[in-house]
Amino acid sequence: MTIHQKLRGVTLAEIPPYIPNGNECQLFEMAWVRQLPLLLKGPTGCGKTRFVSHMATRLGLPLTTVSCHDDLAAADLTGRYLLKGGDTVWVDGPLTKSVREGGICYLDEVVEARKDVAVVLHPLTDDRRILPLERTGEQLEAPPGFMLVVSYNPGYQNMLKALKPSTKQRFLSIEFDFLPKAQEIAVVAVESGLDEARVAPLVELAAKLRRLKGHDIEEGVSTRLLVYCACLIDSGMPVRDAVRAAIIEPLTDDADVKLALTEVAHSVIV
Amino acid sequence: MTIHQKLRGVTLAEIPPYIPNGNECQLFEMAWVRQLPLLLKGPTGCGKTRFVSHMATRLGLPLTTVSCHDDLAAADLTGRYLLKGGDTVWVDGPLTKSVREGGICYLDEVVEARKDVAVVLHPLTDDRRILPLERTGEQLEAPPGFMLVVSYNPGYQNMLKALKPSTKQRFLSIEFDFLPKAQEIAVVAVESGLDEARVAPLVELAAKLRRLKGHDIEEGVSTRLLVYCACLIDSGMPVRDAVRAAIIEPLTDDADVKLALTEVAHSVIV
Amino acid sequence: MTIHQKLRGVTLAEIPPYIPNGNECQLFEMAWVRQLPLLLKGPTGCGKTRFVSHMATRLGLPLTTVSCHDDLAAADLTGRYLLKGGDTVWVDGPLTKSVREGGICYLDEVVEARKDVAVVLHPLTDDRRILPLERTGEQLEAPPGFMLVVSYNPGYQNMLKALKPSTKQRFLSIEFDFLPKAQEIAVVAVESGLDEARVAPLVELAAKLRRLKGHDIEEGVSTRLLVYCACLIDSGMPVRDAVRAAIIEPLTDDADVKLALTEVAHSVIV
Amino acid sequence: MTIHQKLRGVTLAEIPPYIPNGNECQLFEMAWVRQLPLLLKGPTGCGKTRFVSHMATRLGLPLTTVSCHDDLAAADLTGRYLLKGGDTVWVDGPLTKSVREGGICYLDEVVEARKDVAVVLHPLTDDRRILPLERTGEQLEAPPGFMLVVSYNPGYQNMLKALKPSTKQRFLSIEFDFLPKAQEIAVVAVESGLDEARVAPLVELAAKLRRLKGHDIEEGVSTRLLVYCACLIDSGMPVRDAVRAAIIEPLTDDADVKLALTEVAHSVIV
Amino acid sequence: MTIHQKLRGVTLAEIPPYIPNGNECQLFEMAWVRQLPLLLKGPTGCGKTRFVSHMATRLGLPLTTVSCHDDLAAADLTGRYLLKGGDTVWVDGPLTKSVREGGICYLDEVVEARKDVAVVLHPLTDDRRILPLERTGEQLEAPPGFMLVVSYNPGYQNMLKALKPSTKQRFLSIEFDFLPKAQEIAVVAVESGLDEARVAPLVELAAKLRRLKGHDIEEGVSTRLLVYCACLIDSGMPVRDAVRAAIIEPLTDDADVKLALTEVAHSVIV
Amino acid sequence: MTIHQKLRGVTLAEIPPYIPNGNECQLFEMAWVRQLPLLLKGPTGCGKTRFVSHMATRLGLPLTTVSCHDDLAAADLTGRYLLKGGDTVWVDGPLTKSVREGGICYLDEVVEARKDVAVVLHPLTDDRRILPLERTGEQLEAPPGFMLVVSYNPGYQNMLKALKPSTKQRFLSIEFDFLPKAQEIAVVAVESGLDEARVAPLVELAAKLRRLKGHDIEEGVSTRLLVYCACLIDSGMPVRDAVRAAIIEPLTDDADVKLALTEVAHSVIV
Repeated sequence: MTIHQKLRGVTLAEIPPYIPNGNECQLFEMAWVRQLPLLLKGPTGCGKTRFVSHMATRLGLPLTTVSCHDDLAAADLTGRYLLKGGDTVWVDGPLTKSVREGGICYLDEVVEARKDVAVVLHPLTDDRRILPLERTGEQLEAPPGFMLVVSYNPGYQNMLKALKPSTKQRFLSIEFDFLPKAQEIAVVAVESGLDEARVAPLVELAAKLRRLKGHDIEEGVSTRLLVYCACLIDSGMPVRDAVRAAIIEPLTDDADVKLALTEVAHSVIV
Repeated sequence: MTIHQKLRGVTLAEIPPYIPNGNECQLFEMAWVRQLPLLLKGPTGCGKTRFVSHMATRLGLPLTTVSCHDDLAAADLTGRYLLKGGDTVWVDGPLTKSVREGGICYLDEVVEARKDVAVVLHPLTDDRRILPLERTGEQLEAPPGFMLVVSYNPGYQNMLKALKPSTKQRFLSIEFDFLPKAQEIAVVAVESGLDEARVAPLVELAAKLRRLKGHDIEEGVSTRLLVYCACLIDSGMPVRDAVRAAIIEPLTDDADVKLALTEVAHSVIV
Repeated sequence: MTIHQKLRGVTLAEIPPYIPNGNECQLFEMAWVRQLPLLLKGPTGCGKTRFVSHMATRLGLPLTTVSCHDDLAAADLTGRYLLKGGDTVWVDGPLTKSVREGGICYLDEVVEARKDVAVVLHPLTDDRRILPLERTGEQLEAPPGFMLVVSYNPGYQNMLKALKPSTKQRFLSIEFDFLPKAQEIAVVAVESGLDEARVAPLVELAAKLRRLKGHDIEEGVSTRLLVYCACLIDSGMPVRDAVRAAIIEPLTDDADVKLALTEVAHSVIV
Repeated sequence: MTIHQKLRGVTLAEIPPYIPNGNECQLFEMAWVRQLPLLLKGPTGCGKTRFVSHMATRLGLPLTTVSCHDDLAAADLTGRYLLKGGDTVWVDGPLTKSVREGGICYLDEVVEARKDVAVVLHPLTDDRRILPLERTGEQLEAPPGFMLVVSYNPGYQNMLKALKPSTKQRFLSIEFDFLPKAQEIAVVAVESGLDEARVAPLVELAAKLRRLKGHDIEEGVSTRLLVYCACLIDSGMPVRDAVRAAIIEPLTDDADVKLALTEVAHSVIV
Repeated sequence: MTIHQKLRGVTLAEIPPYIPNGNECQLFEMAWVRQLPLLLKGPTGCGKTRFVSHMATRLGLPLTTVSCHDDLAAADLTGRYLLKGGDTVWVDGPLTKSVREGGICYLDEVVEARKDVAVVLHPLTDDRRILPLERTGEQLEAPPGFMLVVSYNPGYQNMLKALKPSTKQRFLSIEFDFLPKAQEIAVVAVESGLDEARVAPLVELAAKLRRLKGHDIEEGVSTRLLVYCACLIDSGMPVRDAVRAAIIEPLTDDADVKLALTEVAHSVIV
Repeated sequence: MTIHQKLRGVTLAEIPPYIPNGNECQLFEMAWVRQLPLLLKGPTGCGKTRFVSHMATRLGLPLTTVSCHDDLAAADLTGRYLLKGGDTVWVDGPLTKSVREGGICYLDEVVEARKDVAVVLHPLTDDRRILPLERTGEQLEAPPGFMLVVSYNPGYQNMLKALKPSTKQRFLSIEFDFLPKAQEIAVVAVESGLDEARVAPLVELAAKLRRLKGHDIEEGVSTRLLVYCACLIDSGMPVRDAVRAAIIEPLTDDADVKLALTEVAHSVIV
């Protein structure tokens, strides 16, 4: 239990469970202490969001999460003027709120956002640590507790959507990957209620399918899909039907690829 | 009759008729119980919308349907500020309403929508099950009854419009196809009033034309068109005229293809 | 005289003249009775608009016509909020008005409209027959008298502007072509005041020019242009001058093609 | 003097001078009498605008001219709602005003306008002669005196900007070209004040340069530039300097082409 | 001193200095007297803006300068409605103001502006000399003193940004080039305070570098950069450092080209 | 200590530390005295922002920094009308404020901004030194103390984003590069708290990696990343872990490149 948890009265029981896979927890905490921003890289559904949520509770900090997308602009993060009673009233966006309260702001899939988002990130991620609100004329200084965390999935090959080096070089970076087998079995069993023995072949299957990434399928099976599959089995659905609905159909629309994946599945789960 | 129907006083007579073609009803119900979102894949007019409508009534849940399109943005689903008496007043969109009332929200042809729609779907489709309304600062937690269902037609080959894996892997998926012959005859007869003997050759013809998909015609004949055709025949139109107006003309604008389809039709319906 | 005309007191004399060229009047009436939407396909100026106008009067129904174009969006059909006295007031669009009054709504050249128009057409063209007004929260059920008619010209080859199969398969379809010679002579004579003997060679010329479509000229001569030409002759303009101003110049800007068309013209009209 | 001039008290002296080059005045007047719309085709500066202005005065009709451009939309022609004292007030656009007052509306370079302009032109150019104002719900019937005239320059090769056949086939069309030599000399002399003997070589030069169109220069010299040139000479500038400033520099930016054109010029004007 | 200066009380001392390089002053004055618009062509920093400023003062006319850019639209020139106290109030743009006061309006780099700017220029540049303000319904007649001057740099090769011939042929045109050596030395010496002997080698260098245009560098050195360079030298910076900061670095980012230019520089300025 | 510092009571202690690498401080001060605008070129994180900050404090001038981006338009710099109490009220943008107060306005990565930004820079960067506010009708004259500084990174190869020569030739230019080794060691040690002996191999590594720029990595390691790395080491993280998180992961997403960079790193830092 860190000093921050004590100060804010967080107990370990309230912390979302997270089993570290390396030095990521240490790195996150150091980054927070030294006031350095952090970038998480990794595939879909490997636990990045859960990790940030775990660390925020562990450090006793409020967490603001923003899922970025093609149309997310700087003003969606900083705030806007709205019309109230004939006047324009400024309303803080999620990033501004997070800076004011000194918590963690997590921008998920930040490469998806519009390019002008970089403009609010740059002054927040150098030694100035300020958030300029051009429209109000304010210039917020981030308090010591504030930390910016962003993530993206380097697996998507999209030149137009890459972060500029001048942005990337403002973040400490960690690469995430899927959990080691034993850990993944444990996680899926806990989340679905299915016992570990019945979960094990699903994780086995996932490992095989993840090796096909880039060939027949665009992305490996996420831990989330394994949880879905285990839920269906736990509810009484035959394993093969559950695998089809929760793993094969979500991975591909192509009839031939489905056939191939089904063969792989049947070789593992009998 | 499920427990939900009893609680809400729905009787079987009020349920829109639907003849299952596999385990789709079981899967839908399990997904609803385990609070997992569902994706329906399948061709035009094969009964996806009818299926959702059937399940919603069967489970005694209010249903909200949104047909997605190129210009549908996140704000069209979540809501907007409108000007009333000089003030801006927040008005819930269809997704927000559905989350508040805890029913089923069905986004038809979700791949057509703008990319920022993903941003409201992601937090609703992981274990948080929340709908963040950034503009009002609210963060709605979906009640246990709420379920998100989306659909798309994988038959259209459009790379720009595919769902990202990070979205797809958040849904259990079912693939739909056209009904088996006997079932389709029954459905068309009921909907059009034409007797089954006269419907049978139309379904026969449909089977032949569906095999041409991808060659001469972009998509197979939908069950809906068969119903249209049977309606015209039932109203007294000669069969060949009805087939032309309800099947051949809707399938193609190409004179040569029309000729070919007409030959196929005449070989079946004499 | 149909029962609807009797009920609404329409007399035959008020019906815009239309000479059917096949079973299109029967099909239109059946579609209206069975509440099925209708799609008219055919070249420029072959009488589609006139046909709809004729059928609307014959059935005693109010007609709303909307010419679609590149920037026509769903909101242009359904309605918008306008600012009145500081409040936003909803104003019905032409489609909404037509649904409320239960008449015929005719969307001319529907493929030209923006893609989001499909979203208001889909729920109106399946068995639900509803028009969802998302912005007001209303969901209008179309009364039995309401009928949706759309048209487009399949002669324009524009992949980007084709209707999706999922839209096309919601309509009964009729293909229109130019009138048979005798009928076209009658129509042009009536509309221009020129006697049939002097109209005949113009229709002869039109037939020849229509065969050139796709080679030298993009589209065949419309009946409308023949009427224009006959008007000029009727006003005393020499035939060749009238043909140049009303037929050749509107068909092409290319000097060589003009020469070729002029030769064709002079061989027919001496 | 036509009957309309008498009725409105226009005298010949007030009519902008125009020397016809064919039957264009007769055609214009017939089109007006028979209520047919008119399309003028021809190169830059050959007198189309002057011709319309001449005919409008001659027929005693008010003239509204709109120069079309890339961003001109239907609403720029029909009108808009503006905010006045908290209310939205409808303000007629130039086309609507012209329809209301029953004069001539001239849309110059109509192909430049946005595509949705076609939607207001179509119902005005068939036998309905109506202008639907969707936003106000009005549907104006054009009075007998109203006439729509449009123009474009077929010399620009721009596939994206061509009128659709369904639009073109709604207009009688006239092709304009530069004036015959004697007429052009007369026009330039009158407009510039320079005597005809000194104007003649300029017109001679123009004829030579117009033959180069499509080779070295994009468009032939307009009559307007000849007037400019004659003005400079009339003001005392040496002929060669005037030709450079008023003819050669406006035609090209290319040094080699300038040299070639200068040689042509010096061979004519010594 | 012209008659206009006398009338408005301008003395020669107040006229921005300009040393003519041909008949451009005579041409400008004639164009103003004959009410013809003027187009200036020429490279960056060769003195076009200064020339217009000189002529405006000399003729005793107010000058309005607008730097055109990609997003400059017609409304930016003519004016807009703004909201004041609940009403929309019309606010004149710079062109409208200039027309009202009858001075010179100079549109710098007019090809950069959006295409709809042409629509306000056309009626101002033919014999009507009017500025139609469609949004207010006004139609301003330009007073005799008003003159429109535009400029662009033909050196940039951008097909998308060329003026249409129908626009170009509405202007008298002058081509500008860099000053002759002696004149440029005088100008740079006056503007920087550095004596002519020390300026001479800089002008010598400029001449050499201008010959490289199109090969290693996109544009020749402007007179403005020579003034900057002379300023630095006058402030005590070593010549080679001044040349690097004021001439070589502004011309190129390429290391090899910089080396080559530096060699050229050192050969001239020792 | 300059005279300006004295006048404004700035003491040396308050000046952000900056160790010059050439004549850049002298050039900046001369440019400010002669009222010439300045352009800084150089790679990410080489200290351009720090340099401007240093000079502003040294000269006793207020500094306004704007990070430019794809959507930054002229109005974002100059100001906008906002609605307050029913009226539109003008609110100065950061550039306008800076001009009014006569300080330094620094536009970071100016090439990223929208093209219309050039229009406000041009009149500010020639001898007029004015900022025209078209929307308010004001024309601000920059006071003697005002200075415009812009920067960009010529290392990005983006033809669409280059400054036009007509803009570039309005600025004195300095090229920045990474610091010489000894200086960089000093800077990193001061900023991170790690002693110089332990910083030295990191700077050594940076030099090696910067040579790979353009081959395996898009941009060299910034001094900022070295500071991050030193911070982690200073906090107790093993050197190799710190190098991975602060240098290798921020530089690349490619597994092979990471391996290669790791080998380089291990050869240097043992």
